[in-house]
Amino acid sequence: MKTVHRPDCRTDVPPDPPGAGKETAVPHKLIRLQRSSYSLEPRRPVMLAIAGDSAAGKTTLTRGIAAALGPGRATTICVDDYHRYDRAERRGVPFTVLNPDSNYIEIMEQHLQLLALGRPILKPVYDHGSGQLIRPVMIEPRDFVLVEGLLPLHSKLARVCFDITVYLDPPEEIRRTWKLRRDCAERGYAQDQVLAELERREPDSAAYIRPQRQWADICVRFAPIKGRALAPGTPLSAELLLRPTIQHPDLTDVLTDDDRRTVHLKLIRDADGRPVDALHIHGYAPREDSRIVEKAIWEQLSSGHGTPMPDSLGCLANGQRSEALAIAQLLLVWHLLEARE
Amino acid sequence: MKTVHRPDCRTDVPPDPPGAGKETAVPHKLIRLQRSSYSLEPRRPVMLAIAGDSAAGKTTLTRGIAAALGPGRATTICVDDYHRYDRAERRGVPFTVLNPDSNYIEIMEQHLQLLALGRPILKPVYDHGSGQLIRPVMIEPRDFVLVEGLLPLHSKLARVCFDITVYLDPPEEIRRTWKLRRDCAERGYAQDQVLAELERREPDSAAYIRPQRQWADICVRFAPIKGRALAPGTPLSAELLLRPTIQHPDLTDVLTDDDRRTVHLKLIRDADGRPVDALHIHGYAPREDSRIVEKAIWEQLSSGHGTPMPDSLGCLANGQRSEALAIAQLLLVWHLLEARE
Repeated sequence: MKTVHRPDCRTDVPPDPPGAGKETAVPHKLIRLQRSSYSLEPRRPVMLAIAGDSAAGKTTLTRGIAAALGPGRATTICVDDYHRYDRAERRGVPFTVLNPDSNYIEIMEQHLQLLALGRPILKPVYDHGSGQLIRPVMIEPRDFVLVEGLLPLHSKLARVCFDITVYLDPPEEIRRTWKLRRDCAERGYAQDQVLAELERREPDSAAYIRPQRQWADICVRFAPIKGRALAPGTPLSAELLLRPTIQHPDLTDVLTDDDRRTVHLKLIRDADGRPVDALHIHGYAPREDSRIVEKAIWEQLSSGHGTPMPDSLGCLANGQRSEALAIAQLLLVWHLLEARE
Repeated sequence: MKTVHRPDCRTDVPPDPPGAGKETAVPHKLIRLQRSSYSLEPRRPVMLAIAGDSAAGKTTLTRGIAAALGPGRATTICVDDYHRYDRAERRGVPFTVLNPDSNYIEIMEQHLQLLALGRPILKPVYDHGSGQLIRPVMIEPRDFVLVEGLLPLHSKLARVCFDITVYLDPPEEIRRTWKLRRDCAERGYAQDQVLAELERREPDSAAYIRPQRQWADICVRFAPIKGRALAPGTPLSAELLLRPTIQHPDLTDVLTDDDRRTVHLKLIRDADGRPVDALHIHGYAPREDSRIVEKAIWEQLSSGHGTPMPDSLGCLANGQRSEALAIAQLLLVWHLLEARE
């Protein structure tokens, strides 16, 4: 089909040059689409990914960041809604929801790209209560888009959408405790059901979830310190691996690698040999120690001292405060604000 | 945030040039997205829009075209699924489903653009039975995408997605008859409900549906011929307005503007003064006359005589054959195949 000049409509399309024939039809369509799409380019939001296995602490981390950014500034989405099958259909499927084949990964990628370009999406919704896929919801990206879920870093097409990527990496025994507690208390499962599901998911977890750790700019590991017996009720310590894939605030002025200090920064090699900064925050770190680090981070904001430091950070699901969580969240808020500059 | 070269991942992104600072962060993201999106460019399908009011005959026209293209070659979607409100919510809304504000027009545009680029969509679904928005469906574009609905030509962003655009334009009294018959027989409404709904919709129909006629490459009007009394049961005649916005097959060798012939072609001015070819097919046209036109269309296929002419065309909902419908469908099949060349 030859596309002929339309005098009245499609005035954005120039008339065919003399001699232009059928072969121009397809490029013309693409040009039309591009001109239309990019003519009213919205401002692109800053995109943060928080990946990790089920009950790794993604929602706790994300919630504090969204609160610190302030009302109306962040859009939070969970990419575990891109299920290909509902609960009943999954009974006939040989793999778990952790498997990319259980999910519309291509649509997840597409939606992440749209959000990264500042465009709205009609996001699918999986209802955890009924186990059904229900009416989708309209999502419009605000200044910051916080994306949490099982597989946001699985594919390259998804990864390129993010400015900052995080992987939550608790030791498996901690995560099992958290998952048992949550799924029994909040999702109505029996303990043996949760344990059986954990076992069933392990191969897919090893194959698809944990490999995403390598793509994270920041790996966050909440854990008891190895070899130290702590008083019961001491919050977990945290190790934040800060990879040089993005520019982190410089903490070498306020921290040393002396691991007798409750907060310290150590240059190490990651399991794969890559150099990385490891920021340790002990569970028993007093508020004064963590305050030093928080101030050092916040003073390096490009927008200067006008922005007050958020004071709502570090809130655990049980209402307790964790200095380690507060520092992790503040660091991510700093990255988000810097990327917005 | 400064984006630093990532040695392991994001290898498609060149390292920052010396001195590159924060201001490069946003363009980088866009470049990453574009490189990722366009690296595996799928083949773009040919896109046909069939717009028209409720019960204007869109499905009858579309069904025959999809059948003629052959199994697995066409994806048919209805863009009336992009409802913002379900049936219960619409009771509190001051406008009808014909109003763009009742619909996620921006998402419809986005999905049309994605399909036009050969990409899949997760399309929302409105269940006419329950009046609810239900689980969305995955749609992958085949060689041809046939898009029918109330508002596919409403906005410029939607219109640029199409290679061929059609508007179905039956006289209002014919459409009312069709709508009464269908909504009572197939959708379980009472006659007075349908009549009340037609009246309620009229302002939105005038404001949003009928203006789309101006954007169509082909306007199709099935109607009795004015001033002629025909035997009951005679199929409706058709007038196809062929606008010079796309290149139509040349029918001047086989047709004249002699309106005593059952099929004739006349150069006229449209209501807005634009020149247009009007192809008339009378309801009582014998098969021999319509065969001449069909052959003339089909012989102008660029792929030559190897492609057999489809013989399944012209099938009305009641099972009768309409020569006028058959010619309209064949013309559109010709356009689709030519655009694919």
